[in-house]
Amino acid sequence: MSNAADLHAVLPGPSVPTSSPTGSGDPVLDELLSLLPDEAVITDPQVMGAYRQDRAFDPDAGVPRAVVLPRSTEHVKLTVQWAARHNVPVVPRGAGTGLSGGATAVDGGIVISTERMRSIRIDSVTRTAVVQPGLLNAEVKAAAADAGLWYPPDPASYEICTIGGNAATNAGGLCCVKYGVTSDYILGMEVVTADGRAVRLGGPRLKDVAGLSMLKLFIGSEGTLGIITEITLRLLPPAPPARTVVGWFAGSQEASAAILDIASSIRPSMLEYMDSTSLNAVEDVLGMGLHRHAGALVVARSDDQSPSGSEVAAMLEAFQRHGAFEAFEAADQEEGERFAHARRIAIPAVERMGSLLLEDVGVAIPRLADLIRGVEKIATNRGVTIAFIAHAGDGNTHPLIAFDPDDADMKERAYRAYGEVMDLAIELGGTITGEHGVGRLKRPWLVDQIGEDLFEMSNSVKRALDPAGILNPGTIFAAPVPGAHGQNGQV
Amino acid sequence: MSNAADLHAVLPGPSVPTSSPTGSGDPVLDELLSLLPDEAVITDPQVMGAYRQDRAFDPDAGVPRAVVLPRSTEHVKLTVQWAARHNVPVVPRGAGTGLSGGATAVDGGIVISTERMRSIRIDSVTRTAVVQPGLLNAEVKAAAADAGLWYPPDPASYEICTIGGNAATNAGGLCCVKYGVTSDYILGMEVVTADGRAVRLGGPRLKDVAGLSMLKLFIGSEGTLGIITEITLRLLPPAPPARTVVGWFAGSQEASAAILDIASSIRPSMLEYMDSTSLNAVEDVLGMGLHRHAGALVVARSDDQSPSGSEVAAMLEAFQRHGAFEAFEAADQEEGERFAHARRIAIPAVERMGSLLLEDVGVAIPRLADLIRGVEKIATNRGVTIAFIAHAGDGNTHPLIAFDPDDADMKERAYRAYGEVMDLAIELGGTITGEHGVGRLKRPWLVDQIGEDLFEMSNSVKRALDPAGILNPGTIFAAPVPGAHGQNGQV
Repeated sequence: MSNAADLHAVLPGPSVPTSSPTGSGDPVLDELLSLLPDEAVITDPQVMGAYRQDRAFDPDAGVPRAVVLPRSTEHVKLTVQWAARHNVPVVPRGAGTGLSGGATAVDGGIVISTERMRSIRIDSVTRTAVVQPGLLNAEVKAAAADAGLWYPPDPASYEICTIGGNAATNAGGLCCVKYGVTSDYILGMEVVTADGRAVRLGGPRLKDVAGLSMLKLFIGSEGTLGIITEITLRLLPPAPPARTVVGWFAGSQEASAAILDIASSIRPSMLEYMDSTSLNAVEDVLGMGLHRHAGALVVARSDDQSPSGSEVAAMLEAFQRHGAFEAFEAADQEEGERFAHARRIAIPAVERMGSLLLEDVGVAIPRLADLIRGVEKIATNRGVTIAFIAHAGDGNTHPLIAFDPDDADMKERAYRAYGEVMDLAIELGGTITGEHGVGRLKRPWLVDQIGEDLFEMSNSVKRALDPAGILNPGTIFAAPVPGAHGQNGQV
Repeated sequence: MSNAADLHAVLPGPSVPTSSPTGSGDPVLDELLSLLPDEAVITDPQVMGAYRQDRAFDPDAGVPRAVVLPRSTEHVKLTVQWAARHNVPVVPRGAGTGLSGGATAVDGGIVISTERMRSIRIDSVTRTAVVQPGLLNAEVKAAAADAGLWYPPDPASYEICTIGGNAATNAGGLCCVKYGVTSDYILGMEVVTADGRAVRLGGPRLKDVAGLSMLKLFIGSEGTLGIITEITLRLLPPAPPARTVVGWFAGSQEASAAILDIASSIRPSMLEYMDSTSLNAVEDVLGMGLHRHAGALVVARSDDQSPSGSEVAAMLEAFQRHGAFEAFEAADQEEGERFAHARRIAIPAVERMGSLLLEDVGVAIPRLADLIRGVEKIATNRGVTIAFIAHAGDGNTHPLIAFDPDDADMKERAYRAYGEVMDLAIELGGTITGEHGVGRLKRPWLVDQIGEDLFEMSNSVKRALDPAGILNPGTIFAAPVPGAHGQNGQV
């Protein structure tokens, strides 16, 4: 496992003290306080400060009127029923590690943080886990491992992000190039709807096509359709042992060609890319001896168990065929894990260079080289630094735009570059977000990707399930027009 | 591969001649005829007869006013726009092999058969296929194989069912215990909506979380939200070679125990169950030397490539531990395929015993033994024959209720048993349909499984996307109340 201390040092989570308010002077808020245990509601503005933003640090984050820390589905129901009665916006929040602003507080609204909903039950006979949303992904993995099982999805932030947030964004990770994304492991969920009912979607059945798949619709809906209060996960037998292969390249184009070659011929269980900027930033943190002069690093894994071990050979050959100046198999699991860890901490490492705008664009793998080239051009044109890392094996990339937040002009240029990268991805037939979600930051580009018709259809589904638009307003969909009570302002 | 001739002999598809109507005397129909090529519209009642029902043979099937055979998305758009203008119900149809009545004609409506939409484009670099909905599953598999690739989902009817129907029902199959269902292989679709717009959902991107997952919502929606006109499929490298293991048991309970043991310890690539009635029916057809006196047959596969070959050993041990009177590994691929084929033709084989009501109920695997016992009890109580086959590894079972259609009393008892099996599945925490869909036949039980709240939410989504309720009325949702034009009568 990677070094959690490193990550936590760079990415401090919100502190979680509580205050016990009694009598707020706001009758609507007093009603909420009367419904829940004292310690479940925070109204201290200073404590609430940590709940206003996620890791996207949306500068337009509002000031909530309260932060609710439910322990149970019942608490969530009471809270949402109250919010529905008073038309109060509700922003659900896991660990606040989101990168698109999907957990950004709204003025006068409330934040529901799931951090105290942390139970887990594992059934090793059916290989399923029933978890509350506030458990960290790493804790789910650990509990599964204790039962001799494996929960595959592994966002790079797995040690600090919650399983509820993973479900709400349909999070990806490093192993999903072979093992799929969060959605592929969710059999059922309990959600609290916009009117405060707890509803079960799916369940502990491996195959179930009874009615519309509201389960799959809710996964990745970023809290805009309901609050996830319980998740039934499918687990696998233990992960097969994997071998790690490392390829060092002079430039991005050679590396992209090797990636395409590998991705179209075998099934790696990991296929990651780092550019020169990001690997140097990581070397600054870890000092593990990465080649600072390299143009690109590719870290690949195979867990193919066939006696020939042919995938490892194929990867090494592909690296060499496309001009790697060094290519080798990691000597052991530990060395392999060091390289995977280097990739995982790239975002916090690059963050030391300045404030970050984190991209999450994806393209079909044959367009990866064009995307990298296009992003380099945007960086040059806008005079900003863009580090480039990628879950290359599924075409999902994270250009990281670093800027000095005190330099207004640079900040402006960084934001322009952020939009231009999404424009480029759309132009290449790609997506503006492969695994982080639309949140608030990417909303203006959504319609450009999916088109007016689909955007309108999505809005009609949102209106059908949340007519007043109280659930996570501003995320994915435009916030309702103020004053238009009971009417959802999304268009 | 299995013997297509056998299946076709038992399951004749609808004949597909056309007539060229000119001037129907019905001005609304004449408008449709003016919009499409002559050969795209059938109005001859006799020819249309073959399009009134699917394999559920719903006795309440209506008489359509026309059958449309589009060749292109444009034809489908023109047809649905026409239907929307005149509030004409639209029933989409693949090959008509559905088992829940999801392709049942409605009086005065039209049937859109996708049988002429048969193009396929394979991109072996991105390992994707772009297919029109009318191609058979077997044809998709064959085209993928020609490109050195594999399309895994394999409904038992794969030689006669369409890929569009597979997407519309989120069809399963034998290999999905390890390789997942249709939904897991669909990256994108083009659909024609209730107002006749062609909209793209998802696309050729391996990871994409931009906006609500309307793609996943539409998969399995059985034509109630839109007409699928194109599908982008994810393909895999060739299937690894598999070894087949056969276990013969005196009774169902020993077999269920072995199945649970295997399913909770390894990852078989197939784990199928047949009871005495079904294996005798198959033996009647194939004469392959199945043990007629056996209580249950389990056919399992492993494609584990680890050098130890430990999965095959584990399966044989589980069979023996739970009292198999015979357990062996098939001598070669051919012998293994004979047993898989025996399982695949079980439905048409049992159909020779009388008319069939085909169940598709599923439970968590630890409840499989209870389900089998309960179904035996229902068969005894109602005095009907129920053969029992199952994709046991994922708890998805097909009790097959055979009856003499000319015996009104027996027919009545068979229908009662059909409902009682669903009641039992719900009682055991299971589903009324694992892979066939709700269609018309299972609609009365849907709310019992998913509950009033979720049923209402699903209805609100249906109303949002098909306000007039013209798409496949009566499937999943209640048909609109006649005369309530523009109002969707679903409740």
